[in-house]
Amino acid sequence: MKIINNPAKTEWKSLCKRAFDSDTSAQQVASEILMKIKAEGDNAIAKITEEIDGCKFIVKTIDSNKYGKTEKASASPFMVTKEEFNECESKVSSILKVAIKKAASNIRKFHIAQIGKKIDIETIHGVRCIQRSVSIPNVGLYIPGGNAPLFSTVLMLAIPAQIAGCKNIIMCTPAGKDGKASPLIIWTAKYCGIENIYKIGGAQAIAAMAYGTESIPKVDKIFGPGNRYVMAAKQLVGNTAVSIDMPAGPSEVMVLADESANAKFIAADLLSQAEHGEDSQAILVCNNESLAVEVTNEINEQKKSLSRRNIINKALQNSRCIIFNNDENMIDFANEYAPEHLIVSMFDPWKTADRITAGSVFIGNFSPESAGDYASGTNHTLPTSGWARSFSGVNIESFMHKITYQELSREGLNSLSETIIAMAEAEGLSAHANAIKIRLNQKRKSDSFSGIH
Amino acid sequence: MKIINNPAKTEWKSLCKRAFDSDTSAQQVASEILMKIKAEGDNAIAKITEEIDGCKFIVKTIDSNKYGKTEKASASPFMVTKEEFNECESKVSSILKVAIKKAASNIRKFHIAQIGKKIDIETIHGVRCIQRSVSIPNVGLYIPGGNAPLFSTVLMLAIPAQIAGCKNIIMCTPAGKDGKASPLIIWTAKYCGIENIYKIGGAQAIAAMAYGTESIPKVDKIFGPGNRYVMAAKQLVGNTAVSIDMPAGPSEVMVLADESANAKFIAADLLSQAEHGEDSQAILVCNNESLAVEVTNEINEQKKSLSRRNIINKALQNSRCIIFNNDENMIDFANEYAPEHLIVSMFDPWKTADRITAGSVFIGNFSPESAGDYASGTNHTLPTSGWARSFSGVNIESFMHKITYQELSREGLNSLSETIIAMAEAEGLSAHANAIKIRLNQKRKSDSFSGIH
Repeated sequence: MKIINNPAKTEWKSLCKRAFDSDTSAQQVASEILMKIKAEGDNAIAKITEEIDGCKFIVKTIDSNKYGKTEKASASPFMVTKEEFNECESKVSSILKVAIKKAASNIRKFHIAQIGKKIDIETIHGVRCIQRSVSIPNVGLYIPGGNAPLFSTVLMLAIPAQIAGCKNIIMCTPAGKDGKASPLIIWTAKYCGIENIYKIGGAQAIAAMAYGTESIPKVDKIFGPGNRYVMAAKQLVGNTAVSIDMPAGPSEVMVLADESANAKFIAADLLSQAEHGEDSQAILVCNNESLAVEVTNEINEQKKSLSRRNIINKALQNSRCIIFNNDENMIDFANEYAPEHLIVSMFDPWKTADRITAGSVFIGNFSPESAGDYASGTNHTLPTSGWARSFSGVNIESFMHKITYQELSREGLNSLSETIIAMAEAEGLSAHANAIKIRLNQKRKSDSFSGIH
Repeated sequence: MKIINNPAKTEWKSLCKRAFDSDTSAQQVASEILMKIKAEGDNAIAKITEEIDGCKFIVKTIDSNKYGKTEKASASPFMVTKEEFNECESKVSSILKVAIKKAASNIRKFHIAQIGKKIDIETIHGVRCIQRSVSIPNVGLYIPGGNAPLFSTVLMLAIPAQIAGCKNIIMCTPAGKDGKASPLIIWTAKYCGIENIYKIGGAQAIAAMAYGTESIPKVDKIFGPGNRYVMAAKQLVGNTAVSIDMPAGPSEVMVLADESANAKFIAADLLSQAEHGEDSQAILVCNNESLAVEVTNEINEQKKSLSRRNIINKALQNSRCIIFNNDENMIDFANEYAPEHLIVSMFDPWKTADRITAGSVFIGNFSPESAGDYASGTNHTLPTSGWARSFSGVNIESFMHKITYQELSREGLNSLSETIIAMAEAEGLSAHANAIKIRLNQKRKSDSFSGIH
């Protein structure tokens, strides 16, 4: 890991560069897959899945009038079968089941605490304004398969979706060559009450959920991480066909450390980030060179015993250690980077943490990123690549949207009438003014104010 | 306005179709403008603005090292000048100033009420999880010019941005051929404390705020409505270069009415929607034919005296009146449509309103859409085209993002260690497990828990 000493501000931009910026080749591939599935539905999915994942699904013709309905789900060739649901029970160890339940309990507690209150005020007498959150009816969760079954992500998406009260929750996760999905993912989904799981992955899954097919219902919002094709597909369908949770990229961590930090712990945290993937990035920002050297030595020592050494070595090439000689520069640089994960190992960690934009923040020496990745209760689906400046990590509100209401009495409307008419006329909108005048000219009989609800 | 009696469910999808779906020609134009401005910055903006808006700005060479900084704003040729700020005072009538201040006061009250509380809980002993909202640092507000100066939109965007505490708020609005922006827009912005206003419009403005130029700072999130080129540009930059408030389209209203409704009021409301633009849509859903006929007669009568008759007549071609013989169908159809604005003129309006997804809802006979468009306190920047199913209208949280924090004591980490290690190992992530083990193996001296913050 390269050590950079007191870089000038003009160098910061390049030091904040991620390993991976825009990905036009993945966009090209994803765009073709999206178009095929939009046009040919289930048949295209089966064909592409056979090509990419090497597993075969037989598509039956389904009455196209059922398009877009949830009932059709039972007829989907891609669905996880009852048999698979039964099998998973014996394929997950009881130790792991206990662990998943304990993690789920913390995640549930923290996400329930996030449920917002209804706002209900009178802005002036007779003018009542209300804001309330309601669940998004149809949501789709994507769980990557690939080299590791990320069942923890099932918890992070399914639990808040259930708490928010989403009516129809579907999940997509790729199958192996044997046509079966990970029993760990199935068990965790089942434990969270998710029954409709489709065994498709990649851009195919995003296309299916964004447009709907003969056997897979279109959703209103898609959640979840994925490889570069999944990411590219989400960006392409987001804001056009469907909502997405956030534009996600490779995972990253920044550690801010001073003399109170422990080099062994920092090294372990940087390594746990690096093992996520070859394009992951781990950044250490500290205030003294001896700590930087100690950490790099520890990294070399600890990685010897780690199973994903090859991935780690590649990720470390994108990683760096930056030394600043004052705290203000550390904070400014962290804000310039806006990390997905921020670990603050400093004498007064809160003082620093309060001033930095990040996805999720880990305070002090006993709050490693792994705690938040699995079990502290916070969500691990977080904005990367600097999107933490404007996006939130997945939270209860991600599965809800806000509706406002207003109820005016005749008196309330009367008090606002001059204001509305003056503004509408200045904007050249006489019909807007007319909608007020016609009410005030009306005799009292149709007066109605349903009162406090 | 066409009357449709008891349509079968199979027809609902086509009855929910908006006047305007995808707009590939606008996307093409917007995409070219985006590329030019990304490559050539201010010079491209000046050139395109001269071509489209017919007003000329002289671009001076600016030190490119200042790229991306806010200080450069003062040097921008596109900035509203001090002279324009001074002039606007005398160009806005005192009646209108009073109206704007009254509307602003209600908008401020309702948006302040929306500020969320910090969540701070212990999920288990020694594991503290926190969620708090912080403001998005740099935001850009777009205010359309065109045939009407929509100064009301300045209130709807600038007030919540200020309440949220966004550090740098910039605004773009097009100038007329004389190179000057609407004094009404400038006055309202000034009243809201917005000083950096750039006189550029269309896809050019969106490009400038998404990428930044020599003299216009890049922002983190773009807000505001606009014409089809603005909409297309926002969709193209959203999720790739910058966040956007929502994918917006032409405005729309749905009125749900029963025998308690007043045909004159409904007609006035449908007309006030229709005058927004030729591609606006007004839908009446009611439970009896005589009301439908009465409303269409009223529309023909009232529109005679309205100034935007030509626009209204075109918008009415996209509009329709649908009669259902039971309330359940009315509600289901409204949810299928998911309107931007929903007016409920029914005996028990709340009972119905509570079950429908919409952007903003107007309850009873004295809550016309114009009230929410200007002065009740709710926001008028709302999701259209069915996006109300997953998006919220602009609210205080639109200008903020949520950060989570976790702080574990040694005991807290200890309680979770078996859970985390079991899950990390099942996901094949040994470095994640290592980050826990190395901490628990450490002697007590580096223990730290900064306690309640």
